[in-house]
Amino acid sequence: MIVVMEQGAGPDRVQAIEAVVVEWGLRTHVSQGDERTIVGLIGDESNVNVSALEMMAGVDRVMPVLKAYKRASLEFRTERTVVKIPPARHGDRGLTIGGTGVVVMAGPCAVENREMILSLSAFLKGAGAHLLRGGAFKPRTSPYAFQGLGVEGLRYLAEERSVVGLPIITEVMDTRDVEMVAEFADILQVGARNMQNFNLLKVVGRCNRPVMLKRGLANTLEELLMSAEYVINAGNEDVILCERGIRTFETLTRNTLDLSAVPVLKRESHLPVVVDPSHGTGHWDLVAPMARAAVAAGADGLMLEVHPDPAQAISDGPQSLTPKRFKALMGELELVARAVGRNLH
Amino acid sequence: MIVVMEQGAGPDRVQAIEAVVVEWGLRTHVSQGDERTIVGLIGDESNVNVSALEMMAGVDRVMPVLKAYKRASLEFRTERTVVKIPPARHGDRGLTIGGTGVVVMAGPCAVENREMILSLSAFLKGAGAHLLRGGAFKPRTSPYAFQGLGVEGLRYLAEERSVVGLPIITEVMDTRDVEMVAEFADILQVGARNMQNFNLLKVVGRCNRPVMLKRGLANTLEELLMSAEYVINAGNEDVILCERGIRTFETLTRNTLDLSAVPVLKRESHLPVVVDPSHGTGHWDLVAPMARAAVAAGADGLMLEVHPDPAQAISDGPQSLTPKRFKALMGELELVARAVGRNLH
Amino acid sequence: MIVVMEQGAGPDRVQAIEAVVVEWGLRTHVSQGDERTIVGLIGDESNVNVSALEMMAGVDRVMPVLKAYKRASLEFRTERTVVKIPPARHGDRGLTIGGTGVVVMAGPCAVENREMILSLSAFLKGAGAHLLRGGAFKPRTSPYAFQGLGVEGLRYLAEERSVVGLPIITEVMDTRDVEMVAEFADILQVGARNMQNFNLLKVVGRCNRPVMLKRGLANTLEELLMSAEYVINAGNEDVILCERGIRTFETLTRNTLDLSAVPVLKRESHLPVVVDPSHGTGHWDLVAPMARAAVAAGADGLMLEVHPDPAQAISDGPQSLTPKRFKALMGELELVARAVGRNLH
Amino acid sequence: MIVVMEQGAGPDRVQAIEAVVVEWGLRTHVSQGDERTIVGLIGDESNVNVSALEMMAGVDRVMPVLKAYKRASLEFRTERTVVKIPPARHGDRGLTIGGTGVVVMAGPCAVENREMILSLSAFLKGAGAHLLRGGAFKPRTSPYAFQGLGVEGLRYLAEERSVVGLPIITEVMDTRDVEMVAEFADILQVGARNMQNFNLLKVVGRCNRPVMLKRGLANTLEELLMSAEYVINAGNEDVILCERGIRTFETLTRNTLDLSAVPVLKRESHLPVVVDPSHGTGHWDLVAPMARAAVAAGADGLMLEVHPDPAQAISDGPQSLTPKRFKALMGELELVARAVGRNLH
Repeated sequence: MIVVMEQGAGPDRVQAIEAVVVEWGLRTHVSQGDERTIVGLIGDESNVNVSALEMMAGVDRVMPVLKAYKRASLEFRTERTVVKIPPARHGDRGLTIGGTGVVVMAGPCAVENREMILSLSAFLKGAGAHLLRGGAFKPRTSPYAFQGLGVEGLRYLAEERSVVGLPIITEVMDTRDVEMVAEFADILQVGARNMQNFNLLKVVGRCNRPVMLKRGLANTLEELLMSAEYVINAGNEDVILCERGIRTFETLTRNTLDLSAVPVLKRESHLPVVVDPSHGTGHWDLVAPMARAAVAAGADGLMLEVHPDPAQAISDGPQSLTPKRFKALMGELELVARAVGRNLH
Repeated sequence: MIVVMEQGAGPDRVQAIEAVVVEWGLRTHVSQGDERTIVGLIGDESNVNVSALEMMAGVDRVMPVLKAYKRASLEFRTERTVVKIPPARHGDRGLTIGGTGVVVMAGPCAVENREMILSLSAFLKGAGAHLLRGGAFKPRTSPYAFQGLGVEGLRYLAEERSVVGLPIITEVMDTRDVEMVAEFADILQVGARNMQNFNLLKVVGRCNRPVMLKRGLANTLEELLMSAEYVINAGNEDVILCERGIRTFETLTRNTLDLSAVPVLKRESHLPVVVDPSHGTGHWDLVAPMARAAVAAGADGLMLEVHPDPAQAISDGPQSLTPKRFKALMGELELVARAVGRNLH
Repeated sequence: MIVVMEQGAGPDRVQAIEAVVVEWGLRTHVSQGDERTIVGLIGDESNVNVSALEMMAGVDRVMPVLKAYKRASLEFRTERTVVKIPPARHGDRGLTIGGTGVVVMAGPCAVENREMILSLSAFLKGAGAHLLRGGAFKPRTSPYAFQGLGVEGLRYLAEERSVVGLPIITEVMDTRDVEMVAEFADILQVGARNMQNFNLLKVVGRCNRPVMLKRGLANTLEELLMSAEYVINAGNEDVILCERGIRTFETLTRNTLDLSAVPVLKRESHLPVVVDPSHGTGHWDLVAPMARAAVAAGADGLMLEVHPDPAQAISDGPQSLTPKRFKALMGELELVARAVGRNLH
Repeated sequence: MIVVMEQGAGPDRVQAIEAVVVEWGLRTHVSQGDERTIVGLIGDESNVNVSALEMMAGVDRVMPVLKAYKRASLEFRTERTVVKIPPARHGDRGLTIGGTGVVVMAGPCAVENREMILSLSAFLKGAGAHLLRGGAFKPRTSPYAFQGLGVEGLRYLAEERSVVGLPIITEVMDTRDVEMVAEFADILQVGARNMQNFNLLKVVGRCNRPVMLKRGLANTLEELLMSAEYVINAGNEDVILCERGIRTFETLTRNTLDLSAVPVLKRESHLPVVVDPSHGTGHWDLVAPMARAAVAAGADGLMLEVHPDPAQAISDGPQSLTPKRFKALMGELELVARAVGRNLH
């Protein structure tokens, strides 16, 4: 950490800082410039009260040098995390996320009914999908919109897994529901609106299930990593990061899918990175090109909305692929994956 | 709701839409332009599946005409909501938010210890503050940062109320904590990060306490009103809206305080509007000018961070006022309030 | 165009609107909903004064139905524009942008000196680049930063073309310079900061040279197409669009490269689309993954910064590729291009 | 300037940096932390090639300590700039911008015709306005929109000045027009879209007229000050800064008026600060509250759009005040100005 003094700040100001810093158990290193004095802090920065420093007389700014996240960083752990999903049924093969394979999670926005889940899942499995996505609890902007089937939806997902065999990823929104959802889900999804619901992060962090953490609409990648740090710090190291579009001024897309998040997160962290081009664009005709681009950029997986009849979907129809388009896309993705030295398993 | 057809969409496309709309119990009104056909929907729009419409063949766009929020809107209820806070102690006077008076909520970011709360509160009351703010549960970006005193903090606040007499506003972050926090707080605060924690909104909506809802960092004013709608729809009409800065590209302020939110929200809704210039700017020297500006723009109240010794604050020191500066600001605010026909009680 | 009336607006309000609209030479179509009346306008909308409509008594909103751009739209011209660049030298082959080939424009941020241009260009040509990029006039945030070599730089570029044979793309910043720059350049580049310098757009629109128009930092895709419309409307149909990153709250990248711009622009317009991942990310290590992603998303070309010694570059060193890395990237791009049914010529 | 080394960067890396820095004529100061080494640069930073430093082996980041603008900063010149506008006619009183008085610039978005200018100006002067605003050259998103009357419009403004006596502020968009516009205008306005049209800044910087520089839609306050630096550096010290709203995700306002720009710019710079709530909000009913708020926040002036008949305005009608509303607002502003120790002259 570096403390930049104001122009003209005298040696008494600097000494006052040194006194405080020593109290916190660190050392200082003073550098006298032509216009400014700079005080470097040496030692364990977790003891530093940054706000206190910023408020001290003669201080212009305090600049961090080290990163705020540790256990999520590639500096801390240089071996990449590979999340293992056990087989859904006896005799099936398990799954890994973060290896050379590119994983595809597909399914409807919301679990709408039993038949749809069972028949769609069978189709998706045949087309090469690896996980079934589907929300039983839905965060909706309007209190008048469909809020999900709840436990009933979870039961349909459980039936799907035992009958069809695709493992499940589904969202949990409430600290009170984590334990129950974890009984049904192979991966717990924390949605964009809950990325900084820190209590929820702590609870899923004490859970024995992989967690996929979606980037908030207005959150920086550093904040995403800090939220991952909450989960890891609570004891759960199986964290998957997901880019799903950020909020900008552009209006022709629902969100702005920030694909540069993929190489940035791979550079900063050892955690696997998944991209959701359905929410990221909001229009089904943009999903295929952005899914291909995500794989070309190095994503470890994709989350795709597929609906047997998008025009009848209860939510997010416009961004859902038809089963036919999904199947065609899987073929395209395989080609792009190979072009960058990977595959779809 | 208006359905804009694609160029060249034939009468069969339009008839298909009419058929669906009639099934939902509405009527249509078709308008044939030179380049486009437009289908207006007449009737109860809550039955319409917008996504389904958007996905139908020949449809270019579906445009809403009515607002998504109802009970929070000034059209629905033309009389402005005045939230009543009962007296903290027997013999004290109660408080109203949303009337001609401008209400000042002041206090530290976090409840740090008992002595600080009691002595600061006495000072604030003497300087004219109406409510004490102070967080017992703190949402922090880093898991390594101070997370608040929890129940212990709530007890200090309760003691303050019975001894000093300032009513309390404090944040609740978790559905599991609402009942308990409501025992201590006069106003429940839902923080910016939880503005779209819909389960939390439902639970505080079933609570017998006024709720102050802070605008999320990247949320539109329409979304803020939709979140208010969640609370009202669950049964709680005492909702206060709070502008506290949005996330933009500007870096010299912590957030961009969007003061135009005040007149926009007053035009759209009957709910009172409070402004938090401390979080909205992130720097104590910007708090006074922006607090004055908020009152001049028509705010019903202010939320201000005050700390006896900002340099020693555990969190948010740089944006906290000293007691001395707070007192000076109260004098300035009274002058501005009078200039716009209001007062600080 | 649709005029949405306020709730309770009476028939006199609607008649007043009809009277004005008829004066402008259009017809109206009135649709009476349960809560609102809607007036549709039929006829040539270029005669409509939208502001006037919005200000009329009883009007809530005016909503456009048609797109504001015409000649840049795919509706207006369904055949995709293919921009032809003539051979740089007698005997060389010409170049097309917007066909099945993916075009690579490479070179330094700024023309720094003659030797660098000649030797780098020979290398780039050998590695498969199609055009040389290099700025002679540089828009710099600081008046104290290097502003480019000016005409001297243009002369080096001209020499390169006659000696090495790569056609030239270079920026023009000033209406006074267009004629001169057009003598040297094969493609005129209008930079992001000048995307809405409408006088410059008009002047390059009267010029007999293809124009590459870069999206402004905070401009919507619709505004980009409106700026293209300025150029086309002034007589120049050879317009190339370029996505180069937009300004958001994210700080780990210099800009947020909005790759969804590629499929959106291809859906809305017949003009070719190029992506600049160097400016779009600001870091050389992000350039390769985002260049691959751009090709996978369907871009017609790439603009890449390459410098013989990035550490000595006068500007934009950190986002420049070394020649060696550029060559490796060209191989990767060829594989991705083939995976999506294209090639690098 | 501070160079933060990567973790594990050895002494040879540091020595390489020292060697380069010494070559540039500066000294270094090395600080050895527990995890990182930090190299401080001491001396004239204008000789430093930041990009080169960032690219050197072992370097993680380069962090600026000094501000990039000098002559626009309050550190450089501690006395606040007061711009003097000479009397429009013999016998009139001159005007100052940046003193205790709050200056009001009012008028139509565009100069539409002679009569409107003369009669409106007489009204505005009577109501207390200090300058007449009105565009003869209009930057419009669409090539099909009204582009202004050009020189004819300037002549009407000149006639107004000699007949009515309000000094003129009008926009210049093109380097070729600066000399001509300067003959007619008392203040040259550089619009938001041209804030980083650096050639235009240089040309108005060599002009003998005060310049009002509007903040770009997506420009930081630091960039605004850098653009002011261009004008001052070219020789013109009479620069006025203008906040007029930035682009964000919010849709209920045309732009987000960033009033915190006022106290930030007053803290960073000695230049006067004006606020334009008409463009900043886009809706006339938001103009009055935001104008009052701007004065309460410390603005030195306001720019307000007034039109005799907003419903007939060629551009920006919805954000224009009627003369009646303008007059009422002037009364309100006088009260707020006095409440913060200022006046409207």
